[in-house]
Formats: sequence, C-alpha cells, structure tokens
Amino acid sequence: MTDTVISSATKEVVIGFDRPFVIIGERINPTGRKLLAAEMAAGDYSRVERDALAQVEAGAHILDVNAGIPLADEPRILAEAIQLVQSLTDTPLSIDSSIVEALESGLSVYKGKPLVNSVTGEEERLEVVLPLIKKYGAAVVAISNDETGISEDPDERFKVARKIVERAEDYGIPRCDVIVDPLVMPIGAMNSAGVQVMRLVRRLRDELKVNTTCGASNVSFGLPNRNGMNAAFLTMAIASGMTSAITSPLHAETMQAVLGADVMMGHDRDCTRWIRRYREPAAEGEGGARERRGARRRRARA
Amino acid sequence: MTDTVISSATKEVVIGFDRPFVIIGERINPTGRKLLAAEMAAGDYSRVERDALAQVEAGAHILDVNAGIPLADEPRILAEAIQLVQSLTDTPLSIDSSIVEALESGLSVYKGKPLVNSVTGEEERLEVVLPLIKKYGAAVVAISNDETGISEDPDERFKVARKIVERAEDYGIPRCDVIVDPLVMPIGAMNSAGVQVMRLVRRLRDELKVNTTCGASNVSFGLPNRNGMNAAFLTMAIASGMTSAITSPLHAETMQAVLGADVMMGHDRDCTRWIRRYREPAAEGEGGARERRGARRRRARA
Repeated sequence: MTDTVISSATKEVVIGFDRPFVIIGERINPTGRKLLAAEMAAGDYSRVERDALAQVEAGAHILDVNAGIPLADEPRILAEAIQLVQSLTDTPLSIDSSIVEALESGLSVYKGKPLVNSVTGEEERLEVVLPLIKKYGAAVVAISNDETGISEDPDERFKVARKIVERAEDYGIPRCDVIVDPLVMPIGAMNSAGVQVMRLVRRLRDELKVNTTCGASNVSFGLPNRNGMNAAFLTMAIASGMTSAITSPLHAETMQAVLGADVMMGHDRDCTRWIRRYREPAAEGEGGARERRGARRRRARA
Repeated sequence: MTDTVISSATKEVVIGFDRPFVIIGERINPTGRKLLAAEMAAGDYSRVERDALAQVEAGAHILDVNAGIPLADEPRILAEAIQLVQSLTDTPLSIDSSIVEALESGLSVYKGKPLVNSVTGEEERLEVVLPLIKKYGAAVVAISNDETGISEDPDERFKVARKIVERAEDYGIPRCDVIVDPLVMPIGAMNSAGVQVMRLVRRLRDELKVNTTCGASNVSFGLPNRNGMNAAFLTMAIASGMTSAITSPLHAETMQAVLGADVMMGHDRDCTRWIRRYREPAAEGEGGARERRGARRRRARA
C-alpha cells in the first residue's frame, strides 16, 4: 500500500491504492489557449481565478498550474499564479513546468507540500529536478521517457520508470513521493495502447509499488466523441490500478466515469458520493432513501 | 482461446476472448412489463416485433426471448414469439425460460444454434436441461448458484460454475458451449460486488477457460443514475475479460461503454466501429478523415 500525500497549508489529499481516484485539474494551462496566454503574460489572472474555482467546484482534488508562455517570464508568472490560486482555495497544487527555474520559483512561494509536474528519465533532467524535489520536500510526477524518446515497448517504459524511482531514492526521495506517468498513446494511432497501459499500470503497482497518473485525454486524440472514449479509458485504467489522472473535471462524463469506477472498486463506501451527486431531487426524502438502503444492506449481510 | 458460436439459419455470432463484446438484448421479456405480458398472453406480438427490430437497430448481437407470464401457456407463447422474431431478423436468439417444457418447445421450432438461458448448478436442473442442450446442439448460460442459493463467497460461485462445466462435458457438451454467469450483486447492498465480479470473471477465463455473461443492470439496483453505474460496471467487467452481457442496447450510455471498451481492448481495429457511430456529420468528408487516420497510423508504426 503506497500513499502519496499532497497538501496546501490547511488541506491534505492522499493518492493511494485503496483510496478514491484523485483528479488533478488540468485547465490552468496556457498551452493551446491563446487568450489565457495573452492575459497571463499581461498580468491578468482573472481567468486563472475562474478556472481554479470552477474546477474545485466540479470535483478536482488537486489543481495543476502551468504558465508555459513563449517569451514570457515564466518563473515570475508561475509564482504569481500559484500565490493567487492558493489565496482562493485550500486545494493542493501541482506545479507544472518544463523550465527548472520556473519550478524552483513556484516551489519557493508554495505553502504546503506540492506535486511537481514533472521529471523525465533524461539524465540532465534527473540531475536538476530531483535535488529540487528533495530540497522542498515535494512529490514528483515521473514521466517514463528518456533521451531516446518515448518507447513503444511498455517494458522499456517500465525500465525508465524504475530508473527514475531508484534515482529519486538515491536523492533521499521515498518512492511514495514518485508518481509514475506510464504515457498513454492515442489509441486511434496504436490499437494496442489500451491493453499496453493496463498491463503497465498493473506492473508499476505490483512490482514498483508506486502510484500512477496520466494525461487522460491523449488516448482519444483524433477520434470523435473524445469524452466518451476518455471515460472508457479512465474506467479501465482505474480497474487496472491507476490512482490519479491529470484531466478536466469540467466534463460530466469524465467525473461520472471516475465516480462510477470508485464505486466499482469499493472505494466509495455505501456509494455515498455517487448518491450525493446523482440523487434525483424529485425523489423521496433523504431519510427514506437512506433507510431503505440500510435495510437492503442488512439483508445482504444476513 | 474459447469461441462460442450462436447462429440463426443464416447468421453466426461468435462470443470469444479476442472478439468484440457481445450484447444480448434483454427487452423481449414480460417480467415487470404488465402491458407486454397481457398482449403476449392474448396472442398480440406487435410489441415483441417492435422490441426485436429496435434492439437489432441499436446494436444487439443476440436477442433474448422470454415468455414467462403467470398462468399463461408459456411453451406455446415462447415458440410463437421465437418463430415471429426469426421471421423478422437473422439475429440469433437466446431462448429464456425457467420452465423446461418451454425451453424444449422453443428449441423444437428454432432455426440455427441458439443460446439457452439458463441452467443452474441445482441437480434437478442439470439433469433435465443439459440433455436438452445436447439433443438440440445448443449453447447454454450456466448460472453459478445451486440448491443452497447464491453464495456471497466468489470461491463458492466458482466451484458451482466448475461443477456445471464438468457436468456438461459428461453429457457431451463442450465447454465452449457453456457461458458462465458469475452473478452480479447490487453494489449498493454489497460494496465489494465489483471487485468480486472482476476477480471471478478473470478466474473463469484463466482457469475454466469459459466465456462469461451477466445481467448487467443488477449491479445498479437501488442507486440513482443507473445507466451511468451500468456503464462503469460493463467497462470494468470487459477489462477483466467478460465477453457478453444480457442488457438493453437501447441505452446510449451502455452502448458507448461497450464500444469504448472494445476499442480499449484492441477489439475494434482502427476504431472503425467507434468512428462510424460517433463521427460528427458536420465534420470533414469520409475520404479525408480516413486518409489522415491512415497517415497517423503509418507514422505510429514507422
């Protein structure tokens, strides 16, 4: 059993094998969002604010914050965005950048224990990112590619993940603070991508004993009805043992898939969260419904 | 690899480990449908006709036909309904009754190789149903309960399944013609029901090497948003190796879950069925989309 604790100043979120699936809200990211990029570069964080609150309202457990804007002062903008979001919500954050100075800038202002997104298996990345993770006592997303790129062979990706976990331990970072992203390929381009990820997630859990995450929407790239495909993917990934995903909680189908999978995994006791979310307002009063559920449960256990 | 072939006079459907999931349409069943029961008892099969065509149109691969109406002449009604449905569609049928005379009556008029729904592990059922299956060369759904009822212990349910498979072999029925229903409990009453079924399906496949089926909607009994929960269940059951389900293809969420799971399992080559169903009509022309998908595939394989 591996628990990864992520926190803000006042709130903890735990990612773990026997816990509800953790959704890391992906919306605060200017990549591919020109308007947001222009606003953030100009010091206007009103959209960041709205994205933060909307994702928390929709059920995000952690918020990813990315400020990757070409030619902008990313370290300053990332730190400002993090401070703003932390002033609005107690939801813990994932500090997301490919620039080490931006990660350090974000880490230096963060209150609590953040997730850092991400380190790869490339030597030069390991050497600069892991000391930062150790220095700030953070947890880190480990992406299973290295200097040779993303291998199509899941065994190679497993080896890269193991290398990152072992290297992190050399730096004094426990493996519970390394969350592996097995890398999900677009299934329209590679039909075996689903089966591959399911096997890889299972191995990462059983052999490396690490938590896992992924950018869930990559799987549906190029296909119609992407939300439907993402829902199928997330449900199956959770069945295979995946414990978190970086995705948008604003899609009702994504949330339904995750909440339903939590029930199926036995991680939503008495279906409390499912019932709270989906109970029809027109139905019978709360007490009545609860009483009948209790009665049925007692019969089943008798 | 186990293939179960079910057929009508002119069409075969194969249920198997490496094949798309098979949906057995559940709608032609008067249980809980008073109007349908009254009509069928009075010899009016117009609703049976509509239910048959609507389910085939929605994507059912096999149609279950049940004529269980209290005090009615079930053997005659079942045979008439089967003959009617076979005159309308070439979709193979599942002959569904708890009355042996009705099963025999249905078998005697059926054209092709039907599925028979069902036999339990009760001695007196085995002794009368299995000889019928052998006589007519049918396949059969084996329900994993016996004289002692439905065990809450999945190991007990596995033992009952094994007993039925072995007894069928004693009667000369190959195990590829026995499809086991592991029995799905309502998850609102038993929170471990999902994990239990996933493990049981996996064992039935790996150890007994049989195909599996279930009444998928039982899992959501008593919960709100049943279609959402059924979708989560079916997706996870397919990830665990389940190969068919008795359910309604008329629910869009059920079909989406099954089609999405087929893609994820690598059972929808080039996502052909998914794309055909969900492609937006407003999008680019067929040729263009196909060309681009082809190009992406080539890149991925390069």
